[in-house]
This record gives sequence, C-alpha cells and structure tokens, in this order.
Amino acid sequence: ASQVLTCLEDFEKRAKEILPKTVFDYYRSGADGEQTLRDNLAAYSRWRLRPRVLRDVSKVSTSVQVLGAQLVSPVAVGATGFHCMAHPEGELASARACAASGTLMMVSTFSTKSLEDVFKAATGSPCWFQLYVQQDQDATEQLVRRAERAGYTALVLTVDTPYVGRRLDDVRNRFVLPSHLRLCNFKEDDTIHGVGPTQNDSAFALFVKQSLNPSLAWEHVHWLRSITSLPIILKGILTAEDAREAVNYGVDGILVSNHGARQLDGVLSTLDALPEVVAAVSGRIEVYIDGGVQRGTDVLKALALGAQAVFIGRPVLWGLAVNGENGVRQVLELLQDELSLAMAFSGCRTVKEITPDLLTRTSYL
Amino acid sequence: ASQVLTCLEDFEKRAKEILPKTVFDYYRSGADGEQTLRDNLAAYSRWRLRPRVLRDVSKVSTSVQVLGAQLVSPVAVGATGFHCMAHPEGELASARACAASGTLMMVSTFSTKSLEDVFKAATGSPCWFQLYVQQDQDATEQLVRRAERAGYTALVLTVDTPYVGRRLDDVRNRFVLPSHLRLCNFKEDDTIHGVGPTQNDSAFALFVKQSLNPSLAWEHVHWLRSITSLPIILKGILTAEDAREAVNYGVDGILVSNHGARQLDGVLSTLDALPEVVAAVSGRIEVYIDGGVQRGTDVLKALALGAQAVFIGRPVLWGLAVNGENGVRQVLELLQDELSLAMAFSGCRTVKEITPDLLTRTSYL
Amino acid sequence: ASQVLTCLEDFEKRAKEILPKTVFDYYRSGADGEQTLRDNLAAYSRWRLRPRVLRDVSKVSTSVQVLGAQLVSPVAVGATGFHCMAHPEGELASARACAASGTLMMVSTFSTKSLEDVFKAATGSPCWFQLYVQQDQDATEQLVRRAERAGYTALVLTVDTPYVGRRLDDVRNRFVLPSHLRLCNFKEDDTIHGVGPTQNDSAFALFVKQSLNPSLAWEHVHWLRSITSLPIILKGILTAEDAREAVNYGVDGILVSNHGARQLDGVLSTLDALPEVVAAVSGRIEVYIDGGVQRGTDVLKALALGAQAVFIGRPVLWGLAVNGENGVRQVLELLQDELSLAMAFSGCRTVKEITPDLLTRTSYL
Amino acid sequence: ASQVLTCLEDFEKRAKEILPKTVFDYYRSGADGEQTLRDNLAAYSRWRLRPRVLRDVSKVSTSVQVLGAQLVSPVAVGATGFHCMAHPEGELASARACAASGTLMMVSTFSTKSLEDVFKAATGSPCWFQLYVQQDQDATEQLVRRAERAGYTALVLTVDTPYVGRRLDDVRNRFVLPSHLRLCNFKEDDTIHGVGPTQNDSAFALFVKQSLNPSLAWEHVHWLRSITSLPIILKGILTAEDAREAVNYGVDGILVSNHGARQLDGVLSTLDALPEVVAAVSGRIEVYIDGGVQRGTDVLKALALGAQAVFIGRPVLWGLAVNGENGVRQVLELLQDELSLAMAFSGCRTVKEITPDLLTRTSYL
Ligand SMILES: Cc1cc2nc3c(=O)[nH]c(=O)nc-3n(C[C@H](O)[C@H](O)[C@H](O)COP(=O)(O)O)c2cc1C
Ligand SMILES: Cc1cc2nc3c(=O)[nH]c(=O)nc-3n(C[C@H](O)[C@H](O)[C@H](O)COP(=O)(O)O)c2cc1C
Ligand SMILES: Cc1cc2nc3c(=O)[nH]c(=O)nc-3n(C[C@H](O)[C@H](O)[C@H](O)COP(=O)(O)O)c2cc1C
Ligand SMILES: Cc1cc2nc3c(=O)[nH]c(=O)nc-3n(C[C@H](O)[C@H](O)[C@H](O)COP(=O)(O)O)c2cc1C
Repeated sequence: ASQVLTCLEDFEKRAKEILPKTVFDYYRSGADGEQTLRDNLAAYSRWRLRPRVLRDVSKVSTSVQVLGAQLVSPVAVGATGFHCMAHPEGELASARACAASGTLMMVSTFSTKSLEDVFKAATGSPCWFQLYVQQDQDATEQLVRRAERAGYTALVLTVDTPYVGRRLDDVRNRFVLPSHLRLCNFKEDDTIHGVGPTQNDSAFALFVKQSLNPSLAWEHVHWLRSITSLPIILKGILTAEDAREAVNYGVDGILVSNHGARQLDGVLSTLDALPEVVAAVSGRIEVYIDGGVQRGTDVLKALALGAQAVFIGRPVLWGLAVNGENGVRQVLELLQDELSLAMAFSGCRTVKEITPDLLTRTSYL
Repeated sequence: ASQVLTCLEDFEKRAKEILPKTVFDYYRSGADGEQTLRDNLAAYSRWRLRPRVLRDVSKVSTSVQVLGAQLVSPVAVGATGFHCMAHPEGELASARACAASGTLMMVSTFSTKSLEDVFKAATGSPCWFQLYVQQDQDATEQLVRRAERAGYTALVLTVDTPYVGRRLDDVRNRFVLPSHLRLCNFKEDDTIHGVGPTQNDSAFALFVKQSLNPSLAWEHVHWLRSITSLPIILKGILTAEDAREAVNYGVDGILVSNHGARQLDGVLSTLDALPEVVAAVSGRIEVYIDGGVQRGTDVLKALALGAQAVFIGRPVLWGLAVNGENGVRQVLELLQDELSLAMAFSGCRTVKEITPDLLTRTSYL
Repeated sequence: ASQVLTCLEDFEKRAKEILPKTVFDYYRSGADGEQTLRDNLAAYSRWRLRPRVLRDVSKVSTSVQVLGAQLVSPVAVGATGFHCMAHPEGELASARACAASGTLMMVSTFSTKSLEDVFKAATGSPCWFQLYVQQDQDATEQLVRRAERAGYTALVLTVDTPYVGRRLDDVRNRFVLPSHLRLCNFKEDDTIHGVGPTQNDSAFALFVKQSLNPSLAWEHVHWLRSITSLPIILKGILTAEDAREAVNYGVDGILVSNHGARQLDGVLSTLDALPEVVAAVSGRIEVYIDGGVQRGTDVLKALALGAQAVFIGRPVLWGLAVNGENGVRQVLELLQDELSLAMAFSGCRTVKEITPDLLTRTSYL
Repeated sequence: ASQVLTCLEDFEKRAKEILPKTVFDYYRSGADGEQTLRDNLAAYSRWRLRPRVLRDVSKVSTSVQVLGAQLVSPVAVGATGFHCMAHPEGELASARACAASGTLMMVSTFSTKSLEDVFKAATGSPCWFQLYVQQDQDATEQLVRRAERAGYTALVLTVDTPYVGRRLDDVRNRFVLPSHLRLCNFKEDDTIHGVGPTQNDSAFALFVKQSLNPSLAWEHVHWLRSITSLPIILKGILTAEDAREAVNYGVDGILVSNHGARQLDGVLSTLDALPEVVAAVSGRIEVYIDGGVQRGTDVLKALALGAQAVFIGRPVLWGLAVNGENGVRQVLELLQDELSLAMAFSGCRTVKEITPDLLTRTSYL
C-alpha cells in the first residue's frame, strides 16, 4: 500500500489491484485485437530525442495558449465516460484536480455527474464539453444549450463513433453500467436503467445505440456551426483529407484521436497520423492529440510534431481509482513535472522552443 | 463451455479443446518451419487503416459481385478436405451454413461427402468445385462432368500441389484419415482404405500420391479450358509472371493462395503477393485471396489491395468442430459483422468505396 | 527414443540429450555473444520465395557440378574437427555417409582419424582437404603432400583463423579434447597430449596455438599456389574486396564462411555477405557458402543468390551423435529431399533454373 | 564463487549477487522507462563487421593518442560517482587498476576519495577531472585549481546535468549515499551529511541540487576557457549543432554521452549520435564516446565510426564490486584482449586501420 507511485504505469498497476475486473477491463480495453492500442504507445518509442545542451534552463515554462486561453501546461484531461465507476465523486473529483493543477478538462456526454455540476466543481478553470450527436437532434441541441449556459468554452464533437467499437473483454464480461450509477446528462427516464427490455445489458446497449448517430456526417458539423458560437473541435480525425475538410467547414480545432484505440482496431496510431494532419492544416486551426501518452517525453514528442496540446484518457481514470481527486492531481502533476524536466534536458525553456529538429525517427525497435 | 466466442481465435482455441490432437494438428499445421503460416497472419498487421469520418454510415452494404453472381459479403468458404473429421455432418453442415449466410462455398476434391450431396445441401447458394488434376486424366474429366451436372458454377484448379507438402506434426503423429471416413468423390475401391499395402498410412500416402499429378503444367489448363465452358480459376498463384500467363491462358480468375502455408514454407505471404498479381492482371480477370484471414479488418485490407473476394480455410473447420452447421454460420456471420462495422468506421458504405488510400504500409512491427 | 526426426532441428535436440554437455557445447557454440550465430540462421528468414507454378515437376534433379565434378546434390559436408567426440567411428562414419549419399566431404586438419583413412572410407566419393597453415611451414607442406598422395581433389585453405575465437561456454567448461582421442594428422608427439605443461588445457591450447599461424597472409596463398597443382579454395572470405583479391591470387573457389560464427562475433551472416562476393567474382571462379543451413529452402535461397554449393557443419555432428554413419546419412538425405521438394514447389527442375527472381527481400521480421 | 568470469555481463551478474540491492540499482538504473539504456547497448548490434582476412596479424597494437598522450588502448575509465559504495578502497582501487592496465581514468566531482588522493593512486598514469559547474562559481574555480595543482591533464565539463535525472528504482528505494561515505572533494560541512533538514534523503537531494547548476550555459564554457589552460572536453553532446558550437567555443574534445542513459530517457543512443558529431567536427577536435560498451567489438565499431577513445562507466563498478582493484583490472584487460582479438580477426593491426568500411548497417534486428 505504501509503495511509491513513480510513473503513470505504476498508477495503472495499482488501479488494477483496486478496481473490479469488469471495470478495469472496460477502461483498459481497446477494440478487437488491440493492435492499435499497443501501437498508440509504441509509436512514441519510434522517435528519439536530439537534446540541445548548455542553454540556461534554470527557468522552464510549460505554459501554452489553447484556443486563446492560457494553460499551465499542454497536458489536459480528455473525455472519458463513467468516472463514478472509479471513484464515488467521479467527474467532480476529476474537475477539482484539473482546477488545482491549472489544467483544462474535457467533460464527456456520458458523464456520471451532470455537466453543470462538473463545471461548478472546476471553479472557473476552463472546461470543454464533448458532444455526441444523438439520433434525436433536439436532444443534441439541448446538450449544446446546457453547455453554453453552464459556461463551457468549447464543444468537442466526437466524429469516430457512429457505432460503439467491439471490445472483446466487455463482451466476455457482459459489461454494463453498475445499477447505482446514472448518466447524469440525460433525464431519469432516458437513462440506461429506465428503457428497453428487462435485462440490463439490452437496456444499456439500446440506450447507447440511441445516443449515437450512425448518420453522423459533415452536414451535422454545418448544423452545429450554425446553432452555436462556441468554438468547435472535431475529435477523431486521422487523415489529411478529413483535416482539410474540417478547415473548410470552419471548425476551430482538430483533436487527432482514435478514441483510445477503442473503435476500429488497425487504424494508425495517433502519433503516426499527427504529422499529416498538421501539414494539411498548416497552421490555420489548432491541432491536438490524444492516445497513449504516458510520459513527459511523450508530450514533448507530440508537441515537436506540431500538437498544440495533449489529452490523456485512461491515466486520469487510474488516478481517480487510486486516490480520487488527489490521485488525478498526482497523475497530472507527475506528467507536468516529467515534461518540465524533459524540456530542461532538451534545452527547451518554453513550449515554442520545442521544434521538429528535436526529433529523429528510428527504423529499429 | 458457456464461454463467449468473441472472435475467430476464440473458435480456434475451443476447437483445440474439442478435437483429437492428430486432427487439430492436421488442420492447423503449415509446412516445415511454419514461417509462412505465421507470416500469412502477420502480413495483415503490416498495414494500417486510414479511416475517413463524417460520412453517413447508417447503411453499410458488404455485397459484392463474384464472377457475375451477387454475394451478401466478400467472405467465402475456401476448399478444405475432410470436413467429417471435424463434425459428422461434414461438408453438408458447411454447405448449409454457407447457404444460410448467403456465402459462396468452394468444395474440395477431397471432400468426405460427395460433391453432389454437398451441392444439394447448399440449396441453390453458389458452389465452386476445387479440382486436383489426377494422374488419370479420364478420372479428372469425370470429376469435371459431375461438377457440371451437379450445378457448380466454377472450377477452381489448384496449381500449387504437384506433391503434398511436409507438415512435421503429421509426420510425428503419423496422420491418416480415420478409417470410418471416405473420400466421397472417388469410387469405393479408389479410396484410401481400398488400395495399397496393408498399413493405413502407406495406403493413404499412395492414394494421395495418385490423386495428385506432379506433371501438372500450363497445358493442363489449356486442356481444361477446352473440355468445359465453366469459368476456371487458378488457385495458388503468387507472382506477377504467373498471373500474366494465367490471363494469356484464358482463365477467369486467380486465387492468390499459398495453400494455407501447407506446401512450401518460406513463400511470400498471400497479402504480400496480392499487389503484384493485381497489378499484373490490371482488371482483366478477377483476383481473390486466401490465407490468414481472421478479422473484418483483414478482409477490408485485402479488398483495399485489390482482391474481389476473400476465402477462409481453417476458421470454417474450427466453427464446424465447435458447433457443426451453426458453428460455421457463427464464424461467417462474425466475420461479416466485423467487416460491416470496420467499413462503417472507415467511412466505406459499399465495397466500391474500399480503395487503396484506406491503407498505409508500416515498417515497424 | 522412437520419436521421429522430422527436420535438422530435431537432430540437434536429440544430440543434446545424447552428448556430454561439454561436447555438445563445444559443437554448438559461437564466439562471444553469439549474435552472428543467431544471424546466420535468421538471415535465411529475411528472404521470401516467389514460386512459379504449372511447370511439369515430375522430374527434379538436384545435381550440380563443383570444380568439374558432378555431385548428386549441392549440399556437401563442411570441415569440422573432432568427429570422434560424437561417435567412435568419427570421420570414417561421416565419410561413408557422404559416399552413400553421393556427397562431397571436406576433411578437417583437426580430424580424429587420419586423412588417409578418411579418404579410404569415402571409397572414391570426392574429398577435399581443409588446410590450416601451421607456424611450421614444412609441416604444412607435409600435409599438402599427404592430401595429394591420398587422392584429395582440392585444398581448402581456412583464412579466418589466425587465432582461435573465444567461445564462452568452452571457457566456462574448460573444454579440452578428451584424453583418449588423437589429432590423427599429426605425429604422436605433436599431439595435444604430448606437449606443454602438465595440465591438459594448457597443452591443448598450446598445441592449437602452434597449429595456427597468426602471420597468415596473402603471400601464403601465393606460396601454396606455387607448391601444388590441386585446386585451391579460400574458406572464410566475407567481403567483395577480399573476393577480388582472391581472384587475383589465382585461387579456384571461395567459400563464404564465418567459421560457423565461432571466430569474430558481430560479423555479417554469410547469406548477407554472399551477394557482394558473387558480384565481385562475377563468374570467374566458383563461390560456395556455409553457416546456418538447416532446411531445403535455405539451400534454395543460397543457390538463388549465386552459391554453387552449400556446406553444412554442425548438422553432420548431430547426425553422427544420434546414429553414427546412418545418422549422417539421414541428415544428408533429409536435406536433399527437402531441397528436391522445395525445387518442385518453386517450379525449378534443375539447379540452373534456380535464379535470383525466385527471391524477394523482406524488411519485416 | 569459483565461476569463471568470461565477459563483462558475467561481472554484472556477479556484482548483482554481491552488492546491496539499493546500490546495485543505483549503479544500473537509467532514467524513467530505460529505453535509451537498452538502446545504448542495442545500437551496437545494428552494425555488422566486414572483416578483412589474410593480413599478417601476428602483431596487433591497440595503442592510441588521446590529447597528445599515448595510451595502451582506446578503452578508458569514465567518471562515475561513489566508488566506495562498491568497494572500501573506492576510487583509489580504480585508479591503481587504470595505472596497472595503462589506461586513462576520468575522476568524478562526486568521488568518495579526494581528487588529490585518487591522482596519487594513479602513480603518473594520466587522469582527467570531471567537473560539475556548481551554483557557487568560486567553489567551482576551487575544484579547477585543485585539479590543476594535483596534476590532472584535462577537465571534462559535464553539460547534460543541469538537474538530476529521474531513475525510478532510486525513487522506489529512497536511495541515499550510505552515511559512512563522504564526497571527498567537498569540505566536511558541505557534504550531504552536514547540510539540510534532519532526514538523510532531503540533505542528499539538497546537496546534489546545490552542486548542480541549472543555469549552465555556453557562457560557462567561455568562463572556464578563460580561467584555465588545461584542455577542456565537453561531456554530454549528442547533436551536430552543439558539436559545431563546441568547436566555436574553443574546447579540445567532445565526449558523445547521454550520461549512461541516466538523464533524459528517449534520447538517441550514443552510437547513433556519434556519426553526426564526427561529421560536424570534421577532425578539428577529438571525439570520444561512452554508453553501453560491453565487448571488444563494441570498441571496434565506435572507433570505425570515428571515436578516438571509448569510456566505460558501469563495467568498472562491477569489477570494483567483484574484486576491488583486481576486478577493475580484469575488466579493463578483458576488454583490451577482446579488442585486440577483434582487430586481428578484422585484419586491423593498428587503430589507424580501423576504418568505416569495416562496418555495414543492418535494418533487421
Ligand atoms: C474508458 C473510456 C471512456 C471513454 N469515453 C469517451 C467518451 O465518452 N467520449 C469520447 O469522445 N471519447 C471517449 N473516450 C476516448 C478518450 O476521449 C480518448 O480519446 C482516449 O482515451 C485517449 O487515449 P488514452 O486513454 O490512451 O489516453 C473514452 C476512452 C476511455 C478509455
Ligand atoms: C486442413 C486443410 C485442408 C485443405 N485442403 C485443401 C484442398 O483439398 N484443396 C485445396 O485446393 N486447398 C486445400 N487447402 C487450402 C485452402 O483451400 C486454403 O488455401 C487455406 O486453408 C487458406 O488459409 P487459411 O486456412 O489460413 O484460411 C486446405 C487447407 C487446410 C487448412
Ligand atoms: C565443432 C566445429 C568444428 C569446426 N572445425 C573446423 C575446422 O577444423 N576447420 C575449419 O576450417 N572450419 C571448422 N569449422 C567451421 C565449419 O567448417 C563451418 O564453417 C561451419 O560449421 C558452418 O556453419 P554450420 O555449423 O552452421 O553449418 C568448425 C565448426 C564447428 C561447429
Ligand atoms: C553510477 C553512475 C554514476 C555516474 N556518475 C557520473 C558523474 O559523477 N559525473 C559524470 O559526468 N557522469 C557520471 N556518470 C555517467 C558516466 O560518466 C558515463 O557517461 C556512463 O556511465 C557511460 O555509460 P555506461 O555505464 O553504459 O558505460 C555516472 C554513471 C553511472 C552509471
């Protein structure tokens, strides 16, 4: 119990000991053969750092501007559902930890605390709302209005989820949301315990199915652009072609993401997709990345390849499981400290100084 | 026993528990060091998918035309011998499952139910007959005539089997066809239990030896073309040179295959051979592939590289062993579902939309 | 005990059970970290075969001409010392097996039967004598004269052994030649049991040291060329530069070899070195290879890259350990059968038809 | 106990048995995920040797000139702190072993014997002093003056340590310098046991923090150049850009180093960095390397890529742990013997003959 947690892997190991197997598996899993899940991590080890020395690094600032807001660090919290499975305080604890660490939090449509309460817990620290376009367009618009009213500063439209991916452990475990939890952004009778046939799993499946929209298309982006003046970010773009299209549709940012490898196994790792997206966008809008970030040097590499910020998904859940708000805070600060030290060792005093010549691609390993 | 079968590997694991070791080994084995056996699978992981998003994928059709016939899906059943070792109903069960799933079945010369009975079990669903050119040319013609009469819509000439490959487990297990089974496309006194010396294995070896023709050459293709008007497909071509020759000889299709890595170990994986064959043929005839297909994304990759359809060998046998006709059907439908979902996640609503830019080659892994 | 030996690895496993550990280790070991030992094998798996089909392969001939002599197969026995450690009949058994299989045998300077007796055991089948240039030039000339008189048809000068390589297991095992064995090409009082200090290992080390000549240089090739009219082959060349020099010095063949990875760890695998040697020589003299050959397809690959013949070292010792003369014969015939079948499957009816387009280089694995 | 130590890995294994776990871990560890630690070793296996034969190698000289001094071998001892944790005689034993083997020793700022005593123990054999620029510039100048007075012939300024790297095992073990040891280049009340709060670890951390200077910049090189006429070497440069800068600042040598992978995980292996540094410097000053050298062939490869000498860190500590002065001597002589033999097998009689064409880069492994 008193074992020191020295890195994000240590948090995962500890969380595995603490969480029920079905919950841990749900959080950890990737789709099908998990090739992309492994590759999201491995992609970082295919780059080596070329550090510069003898620059005065007594002061290192990790601060960045993201959509005009100044953040303490380029490491932010990505949208993951169901935080209350990891800790009773769920998204509230996560939001408080973000505020305490000066970090941005992206709140999921599928949060187990209401978007309004989560926003309040963040006490003024910036929050973005991750949006799934529902089959019911009015219901979708309601979510947008609530996010606007609550004070969210951006909408993150997830574009890689017309259906739910197949995660084999969840099939084996017959995973369902524990019965005492609610999806708090939906009305009581909308939730998974109130609809569908009597078996829990069908209700859950049915609910998720209705919440996702397989018709999701560029025209929904157009529609969303027309009903809100909040900045819009597309989450889940992996190609130059779609990145160019996104710019044409007037969105404000792209989050290069494969949904933590949970949707289509075999897609490019996000780090492998990043350079083509950055090149296609060529500075016209901001580009972010998520997937497999575990170390300060991972952040450094993503930034050197053109990401403006980096989002982490699972590590937040491990922190939450290990120690609630404090656990999330430890995770965030560990990563910030690692980044800060890695910048110093690389001769980068500001994020601006993190440039592509810091990296060299390996063929080996 | 009530364990969920979530993917084709799960079927293989279950089959391994159920089948006698010698039978499982016979089905599973590749030639010699099994390098190509592993490579047939690994080749698929050397490509990554570049999925396109925000295309309305509420409707996905996996349907394809193969030699003019419309199929529900590009996943078909390849020719494998001895289905009755896996399940008493053998090829009849497989044929019924194909019919139920809207899939094409390729019936082996070495089936343990007669080609006529298998065809009938398929109840009108398309069947192709896989032909070995026997040393006895008249006997070969007889098989062709029976296939024509029965209603088969194509002949698949296997060209990679002038001899039987060496599979070390079979040598170690002294594998022979179980004595209660018959090769039903041969007359009683032709079969392995009726010829040769008294020891079973010699009789079996002798029989197979006589059934295969080491003189097999392009002139046999010429001869076959001259005696039948059925479409002819060459199964077992792995090079551009032979593909061009095949076109010259007027065949209707090429099945890129290394016989499930059972003949010559060290040959190219089929997925690595596919592009050069597709390029050489340049649309003049259809090109198919088999070998190592295990996932919907494997099918997607083969199609993106130019295959018109994909055949599976061993997975059918695992399905058969696990649950007879229903097991085969589950295997086929699992693969179809995976393909359909993978298409949706890739932004492909029809098979036509599966194009080469969906893929990128990796150097790593 | 009655386990079937299906491939050369099986012979190695069996030999390991049979032989004393120090002997097995002596035979098996490579120098230092054994990187090249592993790489000699791995290099073969970096090439894939592109087989041609539909060529009448009812008749396949593996026969080759080597230095003008017709051999049944391109697989010959390479020089390895101390056969009597594996089996009491030692080199006599090996020579008889070669004769029975129609194979050439290369006899080591360090044979434990006299070169004359070994030659007689081969009963007319071609033998080459492997020569170490001793520090004592007269002694060296004596060996040449004896080889000429006995009937050897070529001299193979080993050029990679100015010193003995460090094989760590031998150091750990304090390996010495068992006391009942003699190096039969040396006079009694020359042998390791008759010289040096009282401890066996020093005597052995001292003896080997005196037998090898660290001054070995191109002038010794010149000298050897001047004192004999037998064909001369240089064994142990790994570069184009040295290959060109060898042609200039008027030798008749080059054996691309790294001494079974027993001398300098980290050198190129022999298969990786072969192409540059073949290119440098460009047909002016014959080129052979040894090192890591374990399968028929390995032979095929070496021939496709330009080798005229292939020598095997350790597999002969495993055969000898397992079953004396018969064991060696089984090893040789297994490899010949595998080669013959691999040729058939590749569409090569004669060794001439084995051309470079049969191969493609992999980047993966 | 009487097990033979055949190679440097054997020394590491033995040391692991002998040393307390916290000490062994401290010596062995690399930063964070230890990717670079593994890569420092692996980089050597990405090159293969192309040995030349038939050059008279009866006499091989490993001797080199380093900054004008003639050394018996290009293998020298690199700066590592805290030798007294491995053996009571600490740096004195190491220095004596260097003298006995004709090798140069680089003494760490953090030695546990005073720099004066270590120099004396070396009895005239050349010593370099490794310098950390302290936060207190006067204290730094004092160290320079003491090194000059003592007789050191060069100053090695470590430029990769503005902070201490995170080595996870040390965090887990809460590593501190054992209380009976002193950092003997510092005044009693400077040492880790005399400053800071009562807990040892804080005192240690605080001490190290004060000893390192995060402001370290090119102007310190300028300053150092201005206060001493000793040759200056920069230790820790990994890029062409910094190498060119180093030449501009008038230093006399560059030691390509990543601090044994203990600072920033994910940086290039030193062998991968060497060629660009050598090219950038193009002969104007000397270039050395350290990190992962374990075999004679590693030294050969580093020299072939342009290093003038090679430093070893951990292997010295393993030798020290195993057998004090004699252990270090064994380590040094083993490596020299391996180098000498490797040169002979490569056809290199002098270090000058070790040229780039001796190497070929592999893509595999
Ligand atoms: C358990 C879990 C739940 C997730 N839920 C959502 C979600 O509700 N909405 C969304 O857009 N992405 C969701 N994602 C994807 C994450 O936003 C993010 O893309 C991914 O986790 C990043 O990879 P990482 O976990 O390797 O850091 C989820 C991911 C996980 C692991
Ligand atoms: C047990 C078994 C029996 C086979 N029998 C035949 C056969 O009778 N005729 C034939 O042309 N191919 C035969 N094949 C090869 C298959 O048609 C097909 O090429 C191969 O199985 C595809 O690889 P997969 O098993 O990895 O899907 C057989 C394959 C297996 C595994
Ligand atoms: C136990 C052993 C003894 C050997 N003795 C000799 C020898 O006396 N003379 C020689 O030129 N090569 C000798 N070699 C090298 C072989 O001729 C040959 O180059 C090598 O064994 C080929 O590699 P393989 O063992 O992987 O087939 C020996 C090799 C082994 C394994
Ligand atoms: C235990 C240990 C202590 C070290 N202490 C110092 C030091 O005090 N000053 C320094 O410049 N480098 C130090 N280094 C780095 C070494 O000088 C050298 O760069 C590194 O050990 C070379 O890698 P190797 O250990 O793989 O040979 C230390 C390394 C180790 C392993």
